Amino acid sequence: MRDVLPAEKLVREQLLARLRATYRRFGFTEIETPAMEPLSRMRSKQGGENESMLFEVLRRGLAPDEPVLPGDAADLALRYDLTVPLTRFYASHAAELPDVFRSLQTGSVWRAERPQRGRYRQFTQVDIDIIGESGIVAEVDLLVATMTAFADLGMADDVTLLVNDRRTLNDLLTATGFAADEVGDALVALDKLDKIGRDGVAAELAAKGLGNPTTVDRVLDTVLALRAGDDAGALAAGAIDLAGGGSVGLHDLPAIVDAVRRVLPDARVVLDPTLVRGMGYYTGPIFEVAHAGAGYSLAGGGRYDGVVGKWLGRDVPACGFSIGFERVIDLVAATAQDGRRVALLYPEPVEVAALLAHRARLQGDGADVTLVRAPRKPSARFWDGLVAQGLTHVVDHGDDSSRMRTLGTGTGS
Amino acid sequence: MRDVLPAEKLVREQLLARLRATYRRFGFTEIETPAMEPLSRMRSKQGGENESMLFEVLRRGLAPDEPVLPGDAADLALRYDLTVPLTRFYASHAAELPDVFRSLQTGSVWRAERPQRGRYRQFTQVDIDIIGESGIVAEVDLLVATMTAFADLGMADDVTLLVNDRRTLNDLLTATGFAADEVGDALVALDKLDKIGRDGVAAELAAKGLGNPTTVDRVLDTVLALRAGDDAGALAAGAIDLAGGGSVGLHDLPAIVDAVRRVLPDARVVLDPTLVRGMGYYTGPIFEVAHAGAGYSLAGGGRYDGVVGKWLGRDVPACGFSIGFERVIDLVAATAQDGRRVALLYPEPVEVAALLAHRARLQGDGADVTLVRAPRKPSARFWDGLVAQGLTHVVDHGDDSSRMRTLGTGTGS
Repeated sequence: MRDVLPAEKLVREQLLARLRATYRRFGFTEIETPAMEPLSRMRSKQGGENESMLFEVLRRGLAPDEPVLPGDAADLALRYDLTVPLTRFYASHAAELPDVFRSLQTGSVWRAERPQRGRYRQFTQVDIDIIGESGIVAEVDLLVATMTAFADLGMADDVTLLVNDRRTLNDLLTATGFAADEVGDALVALDKLDKIGRDGVAAELAAKGLGNPTTVDRVLDTVLALRAGDDAGALAAGAIDLAGGGSVGLHDLPAIVDAVRRVLPDARVVLDPTLVRGMGYYTGPIFEVAHAGAGYSLAGGGRYDGVVGKWLGRDVPACGFSIGFERVIDLVAATAQDGRRVALLYPEPVEVAALLAHRARLQGDGADVTLVRAPRKPSARFWDGLVAQGLTHVVDHGDDSSRMRTLGTGTGS
Repeated sequence: MRDVLPAEKLVREQLLARLRATYRRFGFTEIETPAMEPLSRMRSKQGGENESMLFEVLRRGLAPDEPVLPGDAADLALRYDLTVPLTRFYASHAAELPDVFRSLQTGSVWRAERPQRGRYRQFTQVDIDIIGESGIVAEVDLLVATMTAFADLGMADDVTLLVNDRRTLNDLLTATGFAADEVGDALVALDKLDKIGRDGVAAELAAKGLGNPTTVDRVLDTVLALRAGDDAGALAAGAIDLAGGGSVGLHDLPAIVDAVRRVLPDARVVLDPTLVRGMGYYTGPIFEVAHAGAGYSLAGGGRYDGVVGKWLGRDVPACGFSIGFERVIDLVAATAQDGRRVALLYPEPVEVAALLAHRARLQGDGADVTLVRAPRKPSARFWDGLVAQGLTHVVDHGDDSSRMRTLGTGTGS
């Protein structure tokens, strides 16, 4: 967790405003849910590893001198993502929402991660979700909106959209010889291919007793061939050629990728049958935004048809796309601030009412105006400090003409 | 804690944007601090009753089968206001901040209050603070900025600014016969005058053994006379006439009130020597914004010179003004949304790429566009649903001319 200082906060708010504006153009409507949810809901096995990183909140009213087991001490938890709260929100308010609900959320989430570079324990997600639409119009809508959002941030040339389908991955593992009940754990291991390499994944599969040497070789040969692009012809024809023969289908993937490419001909869109993604709740297409200069994805999402229905007692299709806001900030150039930001210099003592009336006149001309007590002899360090605050101009309160000078480093004129 | 649905969220974001814009014009710069702070910092006796309403966060890594005392189970807490985190922020970053730092914060705070009307356990505060300025230019700056913010929300005619000084209150109690060490507790009782009346306050003072019948009568006679406006002449002359003789001075109050009135001649500004305010950390002027139609204050603040220095090991003057955002929302009319919000109706099945290309053309004309699957026979309920979502126009995807019809209740044209 960390503090955000004025210069960075300004960039954050500019970016958020741009993302909101883009998503609003695509018909997404913003909602807000509380930071905390009941602990039972946060431990419902939908969050994968995130559920082991919960910040739990102590029950109120515990007797101070009666020991409790840690497992009984908490009743609330801070949310670790915006998806689980959204599914609860939708179940609570379905009657007040449109049949197909396009949700936008921008908010903090918390995970008790080990501190490491680029990971924060409080960070911001910007999520769009479509609840109530089972057709691929939902996926394409999310993908086009999110790629447009990155384009509106000036990142069109740096981002690549990766698309896969959980059903294709399941079929791939089953067809290469894994048992149905091994597929989930095998995907978790396969997801680490980039980090631990072929031997690492093989070792993890063996350690967990998943598959056998033949099935492990077969799936890894297939995945590595796919990564090398050896299967481009088959992919274009809508299937994956398995190492050792046979093929599995690509479900809706070709249709989704084709539609996004036609709507956004300049966007880089890749059908990547090796993309896994961590969360356990995905049931269909999954997606990620990769960035040339970053070692991690900027956004991720997919279809999670099973989750909303769980709270509501009926099937509700849903899919979503989430931007990791902190991961984007450092990669985007801030927009220059508009307008004049004026330092109104005043001597001490000063007649406060006259000073503020002077300020009001400057504001009337459209400037932001900060009151700054003038030192006896303004130094270069003093002027630099004003520039560092983002101030652009200076006016002397003693100067009746309100002559405005441009601020430059090391000088007041 | 509660959910915010799209229509309300839109109003919230509009209001926040307007408040930010106003405060920016006055030179305040926005910062952000984490939602959680170390528990020790949140229990430092600065927060008065708020410290008894902490949401505490369980330590991570507790052994699940080893009982702990509730007092040892937590190491973090959710912030109950934005002032305590600001003082910690300033102590951490003083070297990177201007000598006089004007801070703006908009953020959630949490208090484990008993659920009751108009009180939430998570709510939003909008705070401005000036750190590093000991002169009344700070108070006047905060007061003028906040009254301008309310005016910019269209509430100029409904709000009243109340101003008092803690030193005046202390003098009043001392001069009417309370011992110096009784003053703090006596103020807490006096603060309840509106709720429990003269007899209630007298009973509470007696129950706590504060003062004696003579001092209690004297202070209550004085305060009630002040409320009745009997002392207007003395107030104008810069003093309070005590019941039974004598007077106490008003410190900076007349100068502050005079300056605000001169800068904002149309604002209602009241020197109210009976205003107390709850927090224990105030050391000088205190203020509140009252609203004709609400039974509670919309904003409150004051000077708290002792708090920042505590972390930094040197004296740092500070004062701030905090708006209770939820208290304002219901009282403000939302700005009408600009622009066209179009429902693009499509049949099922649809060619998704063509549909989204059509949408892109409409967006190019400046519209927000939501995809809506058309029912076979659109009913009045269907059209009403679109209006309820805030949509203003409708276009049929099948209609090559993209003819745009205005949406009206019960009709698609």
